[in-house]
Amino acid sequence: MKAVVYNGPRDVSVKDVPDAKIEEPTDVLVKITSTNICGSDLHMYEGRTSFEKGRVFGHENLGEVVAVGSDVDKIKVGDMVAIPFNVACGYCKNCERGFTSYCLTMQPDPKLAGAAYGFADMGPYQGGQAELLRVPYGDFNCLRLGEDAREKQSDYVMLADIFPTGYHATEMADVQPGDSVVIYGAGPVGLMAAYSADIKGAGKIMIVDRHADRLKLAESIGAIPIDDSKVDPVEFVLNETMGLGADKGCECVGYQAHDPSGEEHTEMTLNNLVKSVRFTGRIGTVGVFIPKDPGAKDELAQQGKAVFDFGLFWFKGQTMGNGQAPVKRYDRQLRDLIAGGKAKPSFVVSHELPLDEAPNAYQHFDNRDDGWTKVILKP
Amino acid sequence: MKAVVYNGPRDVSVKDVPDAKIEEPTDVLVKITSTNICGSDLHMYEGRTSFEKGRVFGHENLGEVVAVGSDVDKIKVGDMVAIPFNVACGYCKNCERGFTSYCLTMQPDPKLAGAAYGFADMGPYQGGQAELLRVPYGDFNCLRLGEDAREKQSDYVMLADIFPTGYHATEMADVQPGDSVVIYGAGPVGLMAAYSADIKGAGKIMIVDRHADRLKLAESIGAIPIDDSKVDPVEFVLNETMGLGADKGCECVGYQAHDPSGEEHTEMTLNNLVKSVRFTGRIGTVGVFIPKDPGAKDELAQQGKAVFDFGLFWFKGQTMGNGQAPVKRYDRQLRDLIAGGKAKPSFVVSHELPLDEAPNAYQHFDNRDDGWTKVILKP
Amino acid sequence: MKAVVYNGPRDVSVKDVPDAKIEEPTDVLVKITSTNICGSDLHMYEGRTSFEKGRVFGHENLGEVVAVGSDVDKIKVGDMVAIPFNVACGYCKNCERGFTSYCLTMQPDPKLAGAAYGFADMGPYQGGQAELLRVPYGDFNCLRLGEDAREKQSDYVMLADIFPTGYHATEMADVQPGDSVVIYGAGPVGLMAAYSADIKGAGKIMIVDRHADRLKLAESIGAIPIDDSKVDPVEFVLNETMGLGADKGCECVGYQAHDPSGEEHTEMTLNNLVKSVRFTGRIGTVGVFIPKDPGAKDELAQQGKAVFDFGLFWFKGQTMGNGQAPVKRYDRQLRDLIAGGKAKPSFVVSHELPLDEAPNAYQHFDNRDDGWTKVILKP
Amino acid sequence: MKAVVYNGPRDVSVKDVPDAKIEEPTDVLVKITSTNICGSDLHMYEGRTSFEKGRVFGHENLGEVVAVGSDVDKIKVGDMVAIPFNVACGYCKNCERGFTSYCLTMQPDPKLAGAAYGFADMGPYQGGQAELLRVPYGDFNCLRLGEDAREKQSDYVMLADIFPTGYHATEMADVQPGDSVVIYGAGPVGLMAAYSADIKGAGKIMIVDRHADRLKLAESIGAIPIDDSKVDPVEFVLNETMGLGADKGCECVGYQAHDPSGEEHTEMTLNNLVKSVRFTGRIGTVGVFIPKDPGAKDELAQQGKAVFDFGLFWFKGQTMGNGQAPVKRYDRQLRDLIAGGKAKPSFVVSHELPLDEAPNAYQHFDNRDDGWTKVILKP
Repeated sequence: MKAVVYNGPRDVSVKDVPDAKIEEPTDVLVKITSTNICGSDLHMYEGRTSFEKGRVFGHENLGEVVAVGSDVDKIKVGDMVAIPFNVACGYCKNCERGFTSYCLTMQPDPKLAGAAYGFADMGPYQGGQAELLRVPYGDFNCLRLGEDAREKQSDYVMLADIFPTGYHATEMADVQPGDSVVIYGAGPVGLMAAYSADIKGAGKIMIVDRHADRLKLAESIGAIPIDDSKVDPVEFVLNETMGLGADKGCECVGYQAHDPSGEEHTEMTLNNLVKSVRFTGRIGTVGVFIPKDPGAKDELAQQGKAVFDFGLFWFKGQTMGNGQAPVKRYDRQLRDLIAGGKAKPSFVVSHELPLDEAPNAYQHFDNRDDGWTKVILKP
Repeated sequence: MKAVVYNGPRDVSVKDVPDAKIEEPTDVLVKITSTNICGSDLHMYEGRTSFEKGRVFGHENLGEVVAVGSDVDKIKVGDMVAIPFNVACGYCKNCERGFTSYCLTMQPDPKLAGAAYGFADMGPYQGGQAELLRVPYGDFNCLRLGEDAREKQSDYVMLADIFPTGYHATEMADVQPGDSVVIYGAGPVGLMAAYSADIKGAGKIMIVDRHADRLKLAESIGAIPIDDSKVDPVEFVLNETMGLGADKGCECVGYQAHDPSGEEHTEMTLNNLVKSVRFTGRIGTVGVFIPKDPGAKDELAQQGKAVFDFGLFWFKGQTMGNGQAPVKRYDRQLRDLIAGGKAKPSFVVSHELPLDEAPNAYQHFDNRDDGWTKVILKP
Repeated sequence: MKAVVYNGPRDVSVKDVPDAKIEEPTDVLVKITSTNICGSDLHMYEGRTSFEKGRVFGHENLGEVVAVGSDVDKIKVGDMVAIPFNVACGYCKNCERGFTSYCLTMQPDPKLAGAAYGFADMGPYQGGQAELLRVPYGDFNCLRLGEDAREKQSDYVMLADIFPTGYHATEMADVQPGDSVVIYGAGPVGLMAAYSADIKGAGKIMIVDRHADRLKLAESIGAIPIDDSKVDPVEFVLNETMGLGADKGCECVGYQAHDPSGEEHTEMTLNNLVKSVRFTGRIGTVGVFIPKDPGAKDELAQQGKAVFDFGLFWFKGQTMGNGQAPVKRYDRQLRDLIAGGKAKPSFVVSHELPLDEAPNAYQHFDNRDDGWTKVILKP
Repeated sequence: MKAVVYNGPRDVSVKDVPDAKIEEPTDVLVKITSTNICGSDLHMYEGRTSFEKGRVFGHENLGEVVAVGSDVDKIKVGDMVAIPFNVACGYCKNCERGFTSYCLTMQPDPKLAGAAYGFADMGPYQGGQAELLRVPYGDFNCLRLGEDAREKQSDYVMLADIFPTGYHATEMADVQPGDSVVIYGAGPVGLMAAYSADIKGAGKIMIVDRHADRLKLAESIGAIPIDDSKVDPVEFVLNETMGLGADKGCECVGYQAHDPSGEEHTEMTLNNLVKSVRFTGRIGTVGVFIPKDPGAKDELAQQGKAVFDFGLFWFKGQTMGNGQAPVKRYDRQLRDLIAGGKAKPSFVVSHELPLDEAPNAYQHFDNRDDGWTKVILKP
């Protein structure tokens, strides 16, 4: 089958690889019809992780079931399914409590937790930027879609990662109806956080970025765009909130946060959040931060450390939740919103391309080229 | 009246000051019978804050009501009351939601939140290490005690601060029955956190310190003492938890955390918590951290910054809650436990002394002299 | 001043009564500019309660502050305020935990809890269907509005009762984004419950009534109207939810529930809810039920008893929350939604009338005359 | 193998039946070493349910794994396991959200939810009062025990049902440290509710029953026994709580509640709870109620209806949660408490008997013979 293979830093190509297949009786085999390029893929694409050469990318996947193992009971051949990016067992201590993003079974390293398709350090599972994908524990790891699955697949494929991830940021921040919310980062995840805050009835949604195309999309869903290359985002938020700060905040940028000049400052968005969220406020951080970043220029950043305004964070009595989203926790509800016509997350999509154009798409997306907001590949 | 007055760094004396009195019709005047010295007092005593010379210390107070303003309806002369250290209005946005520790009305600086008796930067309210204390909004800010109030006042006075503060750490950490919990700091607040975790049915309680007297007290309530001058506390906790880390963690040390040699490392306990708490774990931080610490040696610490293992914190999907305890949120319940004989927080008390001995007591407590765990002054 | 006075069953008139005035230093005096007639007023109007002849109705009030007591600190003369219908002290055990609807201080009967303006059995407080209203503990019991207060007062006056009451139903039912929700009763409160569910991102909102005007309003906000004089509402809901039942349910009718023929069945909506909500579902009941109803025909109903399908309720593992809304818990957030243009609850208003037309309005509203959905009186 | 077989009302015998065996690759086969008789078994034993003649009883099971299917990954032959009474799939909408007691997959009737071993209307699964038990989806449905499993099996077997069921009552009632709690029923489940409330730090625990042996056990764990054949339990509770009622309540009796004369009143404990729990209080009901009870004398009871004081329930603003416990939600935590020596639920055990004595034990237990509190069978 054809698949998007990592050859080394900033080098991917579409190659023939062995077909994915049923390996365990609980597996499901899916013919991928939509698979997104994610911001997390770029960390790996840029060579900032331990992702292995020759491995296949792709953790935002949707498609049609073409085979099921002998012990699969719920999922049937022919079902259209969205596939949460977390690979999870369903019966470990973390899965039982709903933390499928920290599954203890599917992650082979006993010092770690959590597994994903085509993802550095998250187990041996191949990615879905390919014609076929093997889904372990298929009854647990597939979300069945309704009859509108093909027609709305640009919406449903967002259930694999960015919609629930943005939603998770708002859950950890405890966004409530009427709240003012500030979101750092208007990439696809940040836009999904803004969209989720709106679904939950937030009163005022502010979003910080500096890419005109992203800010425009944010504005199109009713958020207040803040261009941090032009204004101080902290001051802007304080002005919008009678000097008190936003009720809640979301971090959707991650460790490669950089100033308008392009210089990386791991702690930049974190410290801005502490300053622009009110006393007693809550913050949800879904932007990726990593324990070791050998490719960073800064020595502290190499060790995964941030020079954090902890004194102010404590003094303001803030709470912060972190980490990868447990997609299954939210996915049924978000699917039902799409099915009922109440959510249409595909508004972030800028390109739908055949699989063969993946190398080109990676390059543009990595450059943050204007207008390349979100790419769906169609194998 | 006599009161404990701050003269400058490491210098307090008991002096005659003008009597506290009813100033507003909603005030209550309390004749103090028990008032504790708190670890927070030491930050001020050491001159590490902006606490004004000539001002009175004391925010852990209990006594008998001797006068009430004309608009006080609930509290009566003769009532024995414990007085939460937070001075709060009851009707601002934060008080309404239960965050009396971040009251917007009683704090005069509109950029800050929260007020307290005899506390740096927390409003003009005099402390209670004195014969009399004025309590604003007395109906809201006094907790009535029962008939056993005098007999058990060494227990009830802990309701003013350290018992609810330790409890708040376990609330922010979401300690549940059966959980393993690690607590950094076995000072009075850390001991109260351990005690609260035990009340809540925690399965295994580990506590890190290096003072033999404190660790002994911890052991007396069933906690596992960890002496970090002898063993690596992170390794110890991992060994006790099958390598996974504790389910929950509490920080009860604060920004003056220091290694066994005495050198301060603001981030020491924070980073140890991140390492010794499991993936998906929750951490409650009640040790005091401050936005500016001009007296610190380290330049980052002077700015209230910590070199925080944020990469690992995020990677492990942990959540952290912070800040001063909203005492009223817990105080009725904790009072009822004392009244019913189910809690006896006075086990931390080492000394009950007349007010005149305050200068001596401050000196010993500040030195962490062996056996000086917790002092109650009896004006 | 002029006020709407109760003369006896189905008999009110606008009379001159002594002016409301400041009685306590913590009082606020409000010149009423908008005051609604509520469904609860009808229970009293019909003589089904112990409401005293000669007393003034009105618990949904908004107006301008014209005087404040000497101890009022926050509220100023000239402020426009919405006044939650609960009269509460702010410092009793229930108020402290946010249950201002069950205040122990303002309710004179020690066996009861909760107080309200112009309401049977809820304390001696006069109602606001008058030119002036005295508000006890004004700092706690007034919600300040912004500069748009006069312009949007038809929206803001809904903050006094029906908007937070409808919202409370959805809170007790734990309505989450994507949920299917069934609401019994499309009166003003039921419509506000539907509106609140929509604000919270519910996926499918179904509402049961038999008045065409109400169902039309429900449809106008995107709810699915179910006319129970034409179809079986339980079957309808099951059909809409793949036979499983709605995720959540709200009761917005109360003890005078009656079938299309007009016969009262206290338990009718309750049993229908149990049947039309799924296993594990949650139900919020804000329709009024009372411990004694001497005016009921049915002997059990006279004793406040319902023949409840408890076996099925338990078997389905459902949870039910009940009671009057603690308005303050939600009011700031809902105010901010109105201020930001994200909520416009005045869509339920059918009539805005001078105070003098109150007798006429009561008659039409009590008859459920077509088109008389919600009346605002303008003194 | 030998098993306890139901022959008809009040008639069981130990017979040879076909050996349980691995039927699906995800099955686990357990050699039962401890299996309890439960109060729920008595409903079936008495012929009040549709339980089939010839079927095997037993849903409180513990034993050693003797065989595993080819797709079982976590559980190994030789493991000692406690087996939650709920049979659940782990991947349906209810299981995913933690409601394994309402599994949609393992219950064959699409109008119902939830499955159990040897239980009327809860699927075709054989019971464990036998030498062997087949456990479907074994990785999900077995709880592994530690090295002390054999030694403490009288404690661990309580994890199958009554300990988590009693705990669930306190969870639904939201029992918090310091709360006063009233529990109706001091059978094994009621005692476990009292024990759970104590683990959670409840301040005052009151328990209502009329069997001297049960009340004595209750007293032995610090609860206040209330003999309702001698005093009015509602008055007693009000007296103990300053006339306000208990903060929280638990129902652990069920539909066969009867007065001291033996006459059944389905609603008796429910109405007493409403009266003896305070305004705003919460109630958890784990006693079994059923939608149809053809064997009842009362016509309403036959239809699963209760004459419920709904007016008072609503008026007091109470919340009630209901239903069978999702055992897995609590089981790891409770296991850890037993393992750490902090819980010893075997204090309820009165008899440990060989399987052959089951008929005799059923008879005594059904008679509530003095001293027959809880029986463990040892096949």
